[in-house]
Amino acid sequence: MFRLDPRLQNDTFDCGRFPLCRLLLMNDSTYPWFILVPQREGIQEIHQLGDADRQQFWAESHQLSLWMKNYFNFDKLNIAVLGNVVSQLHLHHVGRCHGDPAWPGPVWGHRPAVPYSPEETDVLRSAVQTRFSL
Amino acid sequence: MFRLDPRLQNDTFDCGRFPLCRLLLMNDSTYPWFILVPQREGIQEIHQLGDADRQQFWAESHQLSLWMKNYFNFDKLNIAVLGNVVSQLHLHHVGRCHGDPAWPGPVWGHRPAVPYSPEETDVLRSAVQTRFSL
Repeated sequence: MFRLDPRLQNDTFDCGRFPLCRLLLMNDSTYPWFILVPQREGIQEIHQLGDADRQQFWAESHQLSLWMKNYFNFDKLNIAVLGNVVSQLHLHHVGRCHGDPAWPGPVWGHRPAVPYSPEETDVLRSAVQTRFSL
Repeated sequence: MFRLDPRLQNDTFDCGRFPLCRLLLMNDSTYPWFILVPQREGIQEIHQLGDADRQQFWAESHQLSLWMKNYFNFDKLNIAVLGNVVSQLHLHHVGRCHGDPAWPGPVWGHRPAVPYSPEETDVLRSAVQTRFSL
């Protein structure tokens, strides 16, 4: 049975479910940052997904990317599977701006997260849920 | 016309061409590290690729990932599009091991590359070219 890794659960807000993935908002107001987690048990690498799941995984990433690009104002979208700390497969989508705190380096481990206020969380969660009917 | 970004060219060895992407070996012997660059002009983000190109892009990444997982001995495969320094779309594939110099952080910007010897380069390039008939 699929269970979200507790560290992912602790660091994010649940925004709902695509057909394959759980959609999470990273609780770090420094960057527009969403995470997709395929709801499959015991998967750590993209190549472990079956063909249909892998296609769906990238389709969901594509839809999320297009929405992020339209909704937020950023210069570059960083998309990455790392998983060196949390091994459960999860795909980061991070909007980056020239001059943001970690620019041009990667965001992971750069500095502690700056949590959203409840109001900010509601606005973002509501926006993405409305767009994707989640 | 597609032209490889000169910084990518400078930091890597050309291993040949998949149907869509140029395959590059990063000149850093610290990690097994290959890069795919779609041979399309003016593309900076994955979502700018057309549907067929995007499918091919992920298919080539999948094939490369499977080969890397079999050929090298690593614990986790990091797959990422960053592009904060070199904006031309390029997809990193980096094999990571518990206890490697950057573990568990990201490899980008962590420390200067440790160049391969010509012999090491030949072995790796030959291996991947043989596998994919490049």
